[in-house]
Amino acid sequence: MISPQAGVPSADSGLALLTDLYQLTMMQGYFEQGMTDTAVFEFFVRKLPDNRNFLLAAGLEQVLEFLERLRFAQEELDWLGRSGRFSKEFIDHLAELRFTGDVHAIPEGTVFFPNEPILRVTAPLPEAQLVETRLINLLHFQTLIASKAARSALVVPGKLLIDFGLRRAHGAEAGLLAARASYLAGFHGTSAVLAGMAFDIPIYGTMAHSFVQAHDDETTAFEHFSLAQPDNVTLLIDTYDTEAAAEKIVSLAPRLKQRGIDIRAVRLDSGDLADHARKVRRILDDGGLRPVHIFASGNLDEYALHTLKQRNAPIDGYGIGTRVDTSADAPYLDCAYKLQEYAGRARRKRSEGKATWPGRKQVYRFYDEHGLFAGDLLTLEDDCGEGQALTQLVMQGGRRLAPPLPLTEIRQRAAMDLQRLPMALRGLETGPVYPVTVSRALHDLARAVDEGKV
Amino acid sequence: MISPQAGVPSADSGLALLTDLYQLTMMQGYFEQGMTDTAVFEFFVRKLPDNRNFLLAAGLEQVLEFLERLRFAQEELDWLGRSGRFSKEFIDHLAELRFTGDVHAIPEGTVFFPNEPILRVTAPLPEAQLVETRLINLLHFQTLIASKAARSALVVPGKLLIDFGLRRAHGAEAGLLAARASYLAGFHGTSAVLAGMAFDIPIYGTMAHSFVQAHDDETTAFEHFSLAQPDNVTLLIDTYDTEAAAEKIVSLAPRLKQRGIDIRAVRLDSGDLADHARKVRRILDDGGLRPVHIFASGNLDEYALHTLKQRNAPIDGYGIGTRVDTSADAPYLDCAYKLQEYAGRARRKRSEGKATWPGRKQVYRFYDEHGLFAGDLLTLEDDCGEGQALTQLVMQGGRRLAPPLPLTEIRQRAAMDLQRLPMALRGLETGPVYPVTVSRALHDLARAVDEGKV
Repeated sequence: MISPQAGVPSADSGLALLTDLYQLTMMQGYFEQGMTDTAVFEFFVRKLPDNRNFLLAAGLEQVLEFLERLRFAQEELDWLGRSGRFSKEFIDHLAELRFTGDVHAIPEGTVFFPNEPILRVTAPLPEAQLVETRLINLLHFQTLIASKAARSALVVPGKLLIDFGLRRAHGAEAGLLAARASYLAGFHGTSAVLAGMAFDIPIYGTMAHSFVQAHDDETTAFEHFSLAQPDNVTLLIDTYDTEAAAEKIVSLAPRLKQRGIDIRAVRLDSGDLADHARKVRRILDDGGLRPVHIFASGNLDEYALHTLKQRNAPIDGYGIGTRVDTSADAPYLDCAYKLQEYAGRARRKRSEGKATWPGRKQVYRFYDEHGLFAGDLLTLEDDCGEGQALTQLVMQGGRRLAPPLPLTEIRQRAAMDLQRLPMALRGLETGPVYPVTVSRALHDLARAVDEGKV
Repeated sequence: MISPQAGVPSADSGLALLTDLYQLTMMQGYFEQGMTDTAVFEFFVRKLPDNRNFLLAAGLEQVLEFLERLRFAQEELDWLGRSGRFSKEFIDHLAELRFTGDVHAIPEGTVFFPNEPILRVTAPLPEAQLVETRLINLLHFQTLIASKAARSALVVPGKLLIDFGLRRAHGAEAGLLAARASYLAGFHGTSAVLAGMAFDIPIYGTMAHSFVQAHDDETTAFEHFSLAQPDNVTLLIDTYDTEAAAEKIVSLAPRLKQRGIDIRAVRLDSGDLADHARKVRRILDDGGLRPVHIFASGNLDEYALHTLKQRNAPIDGYGIGTRVDTSADAPYLDCAYKLQEYAGRARRKRSEGKATWPGRKQVYRFYDEHGLFAGDLLTLEDDCGEGQALTQLVMQGGRRLAPPLPLTEIRQRAAMDLQRLPMALRGLETGPVYPVTVSRALHDLARAVDEGKV
């Protein structure tokens, strides 16, 4: 649903070419050598970015959808064939390829921490390899945005938060998935209409400066907009002079009232938002418009929200765009999808600064007496542990075990999890490192792998 | 070509819902008031991010494609109808809507500066309003990435630069368009297979750590990979111990040679790249493998390339991913698409810190005696100027005036433009502000608009 570009396969393509070339060249090697045994890959984040105390898992639903639909379209196979890089036998293999593996995952909307795998793929090596690129692409981005957006939700609980970021998100898919991820993390809706249609997210909208500018007179613009959207009148008042526009609103309101129309809110989009909000609040209140809400936008993020809160700005809701949809202060996560086992033997990469924990892992979570997270244990799947097991089997033999969860349910889980975060991790300051213990069994396995004893 | 999500319209949708809700609510107001006169909107960047001395225009091709295909699919109209927000008359209008306007633009691959519009839409007000969101979405992102990638190309001219960023780009479209934008800006190719198919960009690939790990023995992995890709053998040597792996390459090379296979390159992906490159270069050279190139990757961007160059690292090519595909040090541009004229009268927004220049504009560029950029003049279209006029008519009445340019041609234009940048703007240090003069005619018009005299 990226706009169909010239040469891009049709929408019924399984997007199998949404991968790095090396996945295909390696796959050809695997097939030639008969290396199609079961591989286990896990996706995890290596470390938290600065300015983050936790991560919020998101993107699993799109991963499962991708795996279910994975296939090479004929035109894609023809194109690969013409490239001269691949044997006819290999292309024939690709024509038959489907994802037949298992997926274990930590559910979307779960808080997690570095080194805790949120996804495990268990599948024949070539399949598990091919899907790496898109799996990272999907999990990385939505987790990035959900983890960022959750910070705003924690800073101003109770305020209306709307995603306004589609225009400066990195492409169409980023805009749509950011709408999903921020809603999941606690936002209340999005301005992106297609995200509303695709994910059943509530959509919100106000008006733009151009609407005011296109009219010769600001009051006429307000009146026309109100008549066109009588049930949802939010008027943008900063095109020329914010306080003067607020006075116009006060004059206009009784005329609209006579026609049965109530002004629901005004929007501020520039200048000192706290200062304007206070002045506008006074003008509205003095004009008998106490029920009219003040909504603000313009370069907002959790830091700006925190400042506005500190200053007691009388603002009821926020439109948050670019800085959340690009996760501007940390626009990527240091994450990886790594081979942890092949043909029944645990594996481990030892590259400098990038070593991984081998084997199939489970994360157990422990709670304190107030029900808050007390610490996690990272261990092997078969190392039966106590605590709450976070990793679950969600796909078997290429088929989901359950239909997709409604997004509202995922959103509720996220809200619950955020309420169980230790207090020191909920704010904007860097908190203490959350305790994730690596089990003795895992240490032992890593050593055994290094010593060639596995 | 975002993966088709449940509920997302089919690929033959014109993506008209890829917009903000307020565009639709404003449009309903425009239709109700008969405000369908000609509007002029311009897209421009307000100011350079820190760490940028110039911008490189990109994304126009996708904008024109979007405008040509713009339409509402029946299922989209039905969905809007069910939302209860819009009148039946308005939905009927939408069913007929096509883009019928003109587009003026600065060609892709042109260097430009703040306040210089790179796109102008002249169309009936509702059409020009509807397309705002996607136009910004497309121009913003590709310009962001092209402007970032050009910096790497300027820092290490002559080195092979490959885009590796798909996995951590913000979604699929971001990965594909970043491949296009970075190629346009001077990269030599991408690892993203689908970008190769969609945009005819050369694709490159090596191997991953998982290939080595899946084998019991590193040398066997190298051998298997070489047999599978005999024409393009690039071997990743940092999975366990980089220098030890380089020695294995030296031992393996004669055996491969006997089978007619040459090792083309080795890849480093971790640790101190300059240090490893020097040691590996010596091992390869001592082993008679002078022609084998060294390719490096891992958290690279123009700053890292600059450091490696300063340290004389014997590296022949670079895989550059996350930091360029997310433009990590400046993940968004302060850009806007603003109404500059409606119904024959110039318009201007005066919001604090966000005032715009009214009217239809042209940018003239002047060159010094060495052929380098000497300064630009921003003026009104009908204020006949000297210098090179950058803005051209590219679409009339909703139809392109010429077929799409081959990407290689756009890439050549970018290369030429980058060679005409003043020297002080080519490096990584913040250079002097490039002189963009605002004409007297434009100042006069702005004043006249403010005084209500237009």
